[in-house]
Amino acid sequence: MQRYRIDISYDGSAYSGWQIQPENLTIQEEIENIVYKITGEKARIHSSSRTDCGVHARKQVAHFDLNKPLKERAIFKSLNALLPADIRIIKTRKVDLNFHARYNVSEKEYRYFIWNAEVMPPFLRNYRTHKKVNLNIDNMSKSALSLIGKHDFSAFSANRGYTCEQTVRELFDLKIKKKGSEVVIIAKAEGFLYKMVRSIAGFLIRVGEGKEDPVDTEKILASQERTARVPSAPSKGLFLWNIIY
Amino acid sequence: MQRYRIDISYDGSAYSGWQIQPENLTIQEEIENIVYKITGEKARIHSSSRTDCGVHARKQVAHFDLNKPLKERAIFKSLNALLPADIRIIKTRKVDLNFHARYNVSEKEYRYFIWNAEVMPPFLRNYRTHKKVNLNIDNMSKSALSLIGKHDFSAFSANRGYTCEQTVRELFDLKIKKKGSEVVIIAKAEGFLYKMVRSIAGFLIRVGEGKEDPVDTEKILASQERTARVPSAPSKGLFLWNIIY
Repeated sequence: MQRYRIDISYDGSAYSGWQIQPENLTIQEEIENIVYKITGEKARIHSSSRTDCGVHARKQVAHFDLNKPLKERAIFKSLNALLPADIRIIKTRKVDLNFHARYNVSEKEYRYFIWNAEVMPPFLRNYRTHKKVNLNIDNMSKSALSLIGKHDFSAFSANRGYTCEQTVRELFDLKIKKKGSEVVIIAKAEGFLYKMVRSIAGFLIRVGEGKEDPVDTEKILASQERTARVPSAPSKGLFLWNIIY
Repeated sequence: MQRYRIDISYDGSAYSGWQIQPENLTIQEEIENIVYKITGEKARIHSSSRTDCGVHARKQVAHFDLNKPLKERAIFKSLNALLPADIRIIKTRKVDLNFHARYNVSEKEYRYFIWNAEVMPPFLRNYRTHKKVNLNIDNMSKSALSLIGKHDFSAFSANRGYTCEQTVRELFDLKIKKKGSEVVIIAKAEGFLYKMVRSIAGFLIRVGEGKEDPVDTEKILASQERTARVPSAPSKGLFLWNIIY
């Protein structure tokens, strides 16, 4: 048996996220179907992250096993030949059986993109959240500082009803960058809770709009209660950006 | 009567070009319909360029007249509120009746974008032509130099069967820039023949691929005959970039 690591980039606009669901088109299913076409093997594709409906990936990493190994180059070329243009394999390599795309992650980076100007360029409409009001980047950065570190992020994630779920995560870094009309929120952690990045982005946008005082961030975090003050920012602005092993 | 100039940006992917056609969705028709909704007036929208099916515009300029004038800001906001997200009004201003979006143009700039790497990023798939073979930029630039100036561009345009059509144009500038995997062909002229930029791009790509010798450019230009050596590059790589009055 041979294990393969594939690095994948996708435009999530047309998909119900990464993970296979009955009746819905997902990225995992698209890739598994093509791997089956190429190899005749029903390989399961394991990814670093199960990105949500509409979320994009600049770089997603996954692995799968084949009983009858093929050359890396052959897999790379045939996957890209058969996959739709909104899913691209950017790299393929053979890896040891002890490599696991999810369990071996040491750091994940997500980026949330906001277009902060009156008019949204038509070419970016599927890849940016649009905010016309000039965002206060200093206040967003102050709020972000309160979120860095190891905390219970229940107030900044979506409860999926798993009462035993571990809700402590360590946010290695969270920063806001502005260049022209583009505002980017960069978040790094070993792992994130469900909708955690979009919740943080949703709150930081409210701070930037002046609807929240950055000073309140710690209090909301400590409450461990998700409220309407922490909305999920739209999925189209979110990119899985990088995975480090 | 009041004349308005509107600067427009659009993603041409979903449209059969600028100019109204029966049975096909065009950008001109979309805008005329919305202007009618807003004003109740059947204003004709005159643009600087009738971009072809699938061609994009970073900046297109058009004008129209209203009998009952509205404020610039009201037109700007209501057009953007009612138009689809792939057509955006970037500026609206009142102009004199002697302003004409097409006849007063002093320079048009088109840019043709090529993604020159093995894998096309999924986010750019509708906005770039994909070429895997490493293009020879020096040879493309040499070929481009032979095209600058005042020439009969029949060999680098698509004959529409108008035998009396004037086929001499002055190409003010034509240059090739490469940054990372992106190659851009920048073309400036007062006006272009039908499919002229895509024909030039199609030939320059063949030069870059080593299928044509740049030395032959002058001979092909002088022939005034369009042949298979000058293919039209795909529309999705082409952007109307700027209009100067």
